[in-house]
Amino acid sequence: MANSSEIPDGFMPIEKPSSFGQLIGPVYERVDEDGSFTRALQVEDKHTNLGGVVHGGVLMAFVDVIMGTISYRHACRPGASIRIVSDFVAPARIGDWLEGRGEVVKATKSVVFARGRLNVGGRTILTASGNYKLQGRPHSGD
Amino acid sequence: MANSSEIPDGFMPIEKPSSFGQLIGPVYERVDEDGSFTRALQVEDKHTNLGGVVHGGVLMAFVDVIMGTISYRHACRPGASIRIVSDFVAPARIGDWLEGRGEVVKATKSVVFARGRLNVGGRTILTASGNYKLQGRPHSGD
Repeated sequence: MANSSEIPDGFMPIEKPSSFGQLIGPVYERVDEDGSFTRALQVEDKHTNLGGVVHGGVLMAFVDVIMGTISYRHACRPGASIRIVSDFVAPARIGDWLEGRGEVVKATKSVVFARGRLNVGGRTILTASGNYKLQGRPHSGD
Repeated sequence: MANSSEIPDGFMPIEKPSSFGQLIGPVYERVDEDGSFTRALQVEDKHTNLGGVVHGGVLMAFVDVIMGTISYRHACRPGASIRIVSDFVAPARIGDWLEGRGEVVKATKSVVFARGRLNVGGRTILTASGNYKLQGRPHSGD
């Protein structure tokens, strides 16, 4: 686990992570002035594959969490991932401070189309797109 | 963790899992007479998202492990995932015995194109395709 001294300013551990979020975390979040957010993960040994770099499953899980959160905050209701496309651009390594951001590309009443990007020090690690099927009924204002 | 009595005949824990494989495991394998294999995971609380079903990240990690193993066994050298497309068909739940299989669709000297499918009791949970860039030089026999 990272020492608190290694956590960049503005990042706080996310509250109430899921069971799987706890398993791969701690995950940190920084909310910027415009309301957008950056999530971050300090890479540990537990995240690695047999090649000694971050397992692709960690990267896909992390970007799914980011895009799913963006979908939730945009639509104000939960969404289930129905398709995620992940492009692995470069490896991430133990000790790396892995950051991720995303955005809504388009939203209908039933599906949010999002995209995300993970980076280490500005260097792209993974890009992804994710489609989230919204659960329940839209709010009356929709 | 599953009781040994709950593990179907023929399945054995995989040897020497990666650090991340240990984190999400134990993962089991059954090798069939034709040399193909089925991997399996007993779903636990640690695999769940805030909705109480298996986190999409677990499903993507699991199918990546399966397709990556198929790529490795086919090409006899490691491959790095460069693109994975995951379609989430149905949720998996705590206690489910999640099985997965895959196959090589096409292999060149540098890339293996694979596909995979996860199921619970024959019900499809996720389908995926994965492209693996082979590392190092091909064997002289290639």
